[in-house]
Amino acid sequence: MSSFEGANQTAVERMMSTRPMLVGLARASDVVPGLSREILLHAGPPIEWQQASGPLRGALIGALILEGLATGEDEAVSLMERGQIELSPCHHHGVVGPMAGVTSSSMAVYIIEDAAVEDAAIEVAESPARAFSTLNEGYGKVLRYGAYAPEVLERLAWMNSEMADVLSAALDEHGPLDLRNLLAEALHMGDEGHNRNKSGSLLYLKSLAPSIVRVAGSEAAARTIDFLAGNALSVLNPVMAACKLMADRAHGVEGSSLVSAMARNGTDFGIRVSGLGERWFTAPAQVPDGVYFAGFGSADANPDIGDSTITETAGIGAFAMAAAPAIVGFIGGTADEALNATLEMYEITAAEHDYFTIPALGFRGSPVGIDLRRVVELGLTPRVNTGIAHRDAGVGQIGAGLVRPPMSIFEQALEAFAERYLNDTTLEED
Amino acid sequence: MSSFEGANQTAVERMMSTRPMLVGLARASDVVPGLSREILLHAGPPIEWQQASGPLRGALIGALILEGLATGEDEAVSLMERGQIELSPCHHHGVVGPMAGVTSSSMAVYIIEDAAVEDAAIEVAESPARAFSTLNEGYGKVLRYGAYAPEVLERLAWMNSEMADVLSAALDEHGPLDLRNLLAEALHMGDEGHNRNKSGSLLYLKSLAPSIVRVAGSEAAARTIDFLAGNALSVLNPVMAACKLMADRAHGVEGSSLVSAMARNGTDFGIRVSGLGERWFTAPAQVPDGVYFAGFGSADANPDIGDSTITETAGIGAFAMAAAPAIVGFIGGTADEALNATLEMYEITAAEHDYFTIPALGFRGSPVGIDLRRVVELGLTPRVNTGIAHRDAGVGQIGAGLVRPPMSIFEQALEAFAERYLNDTTLEED
Repeated sequence: MSSFEGANQTAVERMMSTRPMLVGLARASDVVPGLSREILLHAGPPIEWQQASGPLRGALIGALILEGLATGEDEAVSLMERGQIELSPCHHHGVVGPMAGVTSSSMAVYIIEDAAVEDAAIEVAESPARAFSTLNEGYGKVLRYGAYAPEVLERLAWMNSEMADVLSAALDEHGPLDLRNLLAEALHMGDEGHNRNKSGSLLYLKSLAPSIVRVAGSEAAARTIDFLAGNALSVLNPVMAACKLMADRAHGVEGSSLVSAMARNGTDFGIRVSGLGERWFTAPAQVPDGVYFAGFGSADANPDIGDSTITETAGIGAFAMAAAPAIVGFIGGTADEALNATLEMYEITAAEHDYFTIPALGFRGSPVGIDLRRVVELGLTPRVNTGIAHRDAGVGQIGAGLVRPPMSIFEQALEAFAERYLNDTTLEED
Repeated sequence: MSSFEGANQTAVERMMSTRPMLVGLARASDVVPGLSREILLHAGPPIEWQQASGPLRGALIGALILEGLATGEDEAVSLMERGQIELSPCHHHGVVGPMAGVTSSSMAVYIIEDAAVEDAAIEVAESPARAFSTLNEGYGKVLRYGAYAPEVLERLAWMNSEMADVLSAALDEHGPLDLRNLLAEALHMGDEGHNRNKSGSLLYLKSLAPSIVRVAGSEAAARTIDFLAGNALSVLNPVMAACKLMADRAHGVEGSSLVSAMARNGTDFGIRVSGLGERWFTAPAQVPDGVYFAGFGSADANPDIGDSTITETAGIGAFAMAAAPAIVGFIGGTADEALNATLEMYEITAAEHDYFTIPALGFRGSPVGIDLRRVVELGLTPRVNTGIAHRDAGVGQIGAGLVRPPMSIFEQALEAFAERYLNDTTLEED
């Protein structure tokens, strides 16, 4: 085994041995490093307002109104144009967010910690010890798709107050929730963990419902349980943060060519590589191929957006499509294509997951640890399942489908990898 | 198409077009036709105490103590031996019960009705308009596996009082629950609806939890939600009653060779046929092939028992194994064998289900409507997934596996079918 292979095995073992636990909730500015009232976090690699697409702009406008920093759209836009609000990628703060991913100071966030660190079974890397994500808003007109109508902000205000308080108290009563176990079980129940989190969301509800009833008043408990029960994506955000923690553990391994983050800001698709530090490799994001809601088509679609590709980075999502044949009703394609999607991803990954297994493949571990060397060598980019946002601010979701990152970002990264390591005599080329 | 084929199509269409709704709960003796305090209902075809196997005897003893008809095992056995308690098959009363299936007068039962009747879309057969089932007790030491220790009866007493009251009030608040929709969704979430009802039970919990919180006091709501959340079989019993309603709708079609009931009493396996009236065709039940819990083996196993084969009769369970590859971890076999189990059952069935579809087979309808002519012609008996009970009274479950009914019951039935119809000039032979 070459030293690169060894580094990749170290990285992927770290990723798999991470045991993400949902331990609680808090106000974002109280726990997220470097977040303050004048900073808005967003999905994907770094971007400025001038380059931001419609749905990201819509979500930023909504967050400014939610925070009381602007009274309406015009004021919000003016604040952004005058540069009075700093934009920063979620990923730089241990956060991940679906679609626009906008996270602001007063929002409630889930806190995910690594139980494996306490088990002392793994060597702790210098990567962050925690990951965070906001609460999932459900379907329809929602901030993450760029909608900011009054009902969107009212729902968010309720989620960040009563619902977050109920969930926080329930989690305290319940104790930490093992998200790796939850995901492993959900993959045996027809989920792939990214676009399809139906079973995982029910497992999440099942785990917390008894505690919710015990800790909350009847009305608040009923509203919270109603909301969770009605949202088949309720567990998506904590799952994403769990994947972020796993991927972060794989980051920073000297000589590793594994991809440790994939994320889109609606304009650019970016990746980071374990052995290449904090640098993003980016190129314009593509419009997904997918199934559109009635009345919409690809001309209405925004380029790919969101941090949710952290699921594929961690070996689930499109990589575990074979576990979720029913998803094709939502994103298009056939059951055979779903099976083949997973089989194809084994070609570009370093391992088969120890914990995430796929019944239909004889319980084979899902493909995990994207090796950028293989991506370039085989000309095969990772598959990604995704939602599709309308290109204009304020509209929302118009479909769901499949997308692949541009090959050029892997080529750039491989070039940087070669520059960084080719003359490093401590590592052998393989 | 011969008249027999036409009759079978009529029968299977009636089965599929039935829309079973869970409408409420009641005390068994208030709603189950012909049930009184001195009658105990049991799974399978008719049987007397003298022929009853250990787990059925254990469940009958437990029911007599629960009803206050006996103070302990000796008194219960004496009552049974003196013939003071009448035994009657669940199936004769519109009831179905898993394993021993013992249903007594004071037990709470789910009430399932056919919404398609109200829709007036189908012609109502003379078959019963409702079906019933008790509440599922969960795993471990439970009455349905023949256990009757004090904790078993205490749990039952609670289920039949507080839990039933809470569920009843919650269902009233919620309104009728569409079990056909629930099952169709669960089959897309890795269930097969018989041995694996993990997703279905979560869908059931999700549907009722908000109402439970609204109608019940905090403690009673928490206990009920805890119990439902901890039992991956909670929806099995209403699902069985739904299947019973569907199968009953297919019963009584002149000239139909479709099997309208399959059931075991722990001694005999019996079937009924749509065009052959109320007669049971029986032969000794077999011991399942399966996976045993640590410390147990096939020598400890009771022959096959329970009404739960009503699921296979209605086109789910082992017939929908291809939807549930993860089940092989519980009952043995491989994912490929699970796929092949479903493919095999298309050989002996009259239709592909309109509503129960299997994503992994490109959303093909599950095989439904067992044609006894094909069973005999091809020498291929229906597959059945099942739990395995210890042969002694009072022990409980010791494994799970696969079983097939004896071929001789289909041969007997075909003989009776030929006798009944061969000289009937209103029907052509095909």
